[in-house]
Amino acid sequence: MANNHISVDCVVVGFDGEQLKVLLVKRANEVEGEILHDMKLPGSLIYMDEDLDEAAKRVLNELTGLKNVNLIQFKAFGSKDRTKDPKDVRWLERAMKSKVERIVTVAYLSLVKIDRTLSRSVDDYHACWVALGDVKELAFDHNLIIKEAMKSIRQYVDTNPSYLFDLLPRKFTASQLRTLYELVYGKQIDVRNFHKKVAMMEYVVPLEEKQQGVAHRAARYYRFDKKIYNKVRR
Amino acid sequence: MANNHISVDCVVVGFDGEQLKVLLVKRANEVEGEILHDMKLPGSLIYMDEDLDEAAKRVLNELTGLKNVNLIQFKAFGSKDRTKDPKDVRWLERAMKSKVERIVTVAYLSLVKIDRTLSRSVDDYHACWVALGDVKELAFDHNLIIKEAMKSIRQYVDTNPSYLFDLLPRKFTASQLRTLYELVYGKQIDVRNFHKKVAMMEYVVPLEEKQQGVAHRAARYYRFDKKIYNKVRR
Repeated sequence: MANNHISVDCVVVGFDGEQLKVLLVKRANEVEGEILHDMKLPGSLIYMDEDLDEAAKRVLNELTGLKNVNLIQFKAFGSKDRTKDPKDVRWLERAMKSKVERIVTVAYLSLVKIDRTLSRSVDDYHACWVALGDVKELAFDHNLIIKEAMKSIRQYVDTNPSYLFDLLPRKFTASQLRTLYELVYGKQIDVRNFHKKVAMMEYVVPLEEKQQGVAHRAARYYRFDKKIYNKVRR
Repeated sequence: MANNHISVDCVVVGFDGEQLKVLLVKRANEVEGEILHDMKLPGSLIYMDEDLDEAAKRVLNELTGLKNVNLIQFKAFGSKDRTKDPKDVRWLERAMKSKVERIVTVAYLSLVKIDRTLSRSVDDYHACWVALGDVKELAFDHNLIIKEAMKSIRQYVDTNPSYLFDLLPRKFTASQLRTLYELVYGKQIDVRNFHKKVAMMEYVVPLEEKQQGVAHRAARYYRFDKKIYNKVRR
């Protein structure tokens, strides 16, 4: 009888104005005298009485305190190599108190404003934001899952640019928006062309307000107008 | 211990010039004296030694004879309600010779030219093309899976219109292309506007050849040029 297990893992992505960051939790666990100090995506096995979407919501909340997050299922990962590292298997079997042969995980993606508070009550897991460039080797295939999540983000933004604005603060500068495009698409964008492009986006509305207390020339703030977006994109 | 099972299911979609069709197999199985005559998507449990993508390829080939099909994973289905129908559970448990509590399925999508031959050697499963409008109540949540597959097709075509041409014969008429658009988007398209749109698609290349032996005025054939497409879409 196949000894299959099913988990969910959440790739929660934020943008701090300069970098894309991903939410990770600590896997600090003693396994037969060996202490694991690496990190992983927030994830866990699903319960028998919950659907996949419910499980993703529950697990993210339990490990990070985040609530009301819009999680989109983007891919299932089921390679038999997922459990090729004995360290991962020992950790799993200890946590689950049973033998593990294969674990298929269903991965979820969420783009959030990075100022959302992580709960203090779940400090056991040390949930924290890590810049994409600083992500070390994670448990299981979680580096691969993040890589695939980034591909999905590009696809979602291609189809529906409004996703980008989930990552930005309520008011943002054109330069922040450009940096975000550059990070999502992994390439530099010409400043002048980009300003023209923004001017054509009717749903990016300039505000009267400008940056304050900056050394350089204060930049204008913009906001994303969902109503205009829905009108012009239908 | 959770008794989880993992399967793959394939939604293979074709277009016969008039309708979208989906590839189904028969579930004719005697379960405790009751004979099931309904249909299902080609799918089955995964083996322990194969990845999800490998399993989808294998299962599709075993049940329909199709080979070298471009299968895209589009969604995992894991609702606990998937096995709410006792008829489905009895069928599964008989086939698997073990108790089934939950079965998570990873669904794959493929768009193919409908003239591909289905294998005779797997006639046990009676693989056949069924027009979307004629699909009856299928096993498990397979009607829902097809519905979600159609949503995914629209998203893929939005991002990458070349997917549509996977469904068309090598040479096709403008009217066939329009019908296909109408079916995928579920709405009528104005003929004149559509002809203008086609004229703008540099990658839809008119041929010298016209339809033969038709009662109405013979329509010109077109072909899809992948090279031009890749050039103009990058």
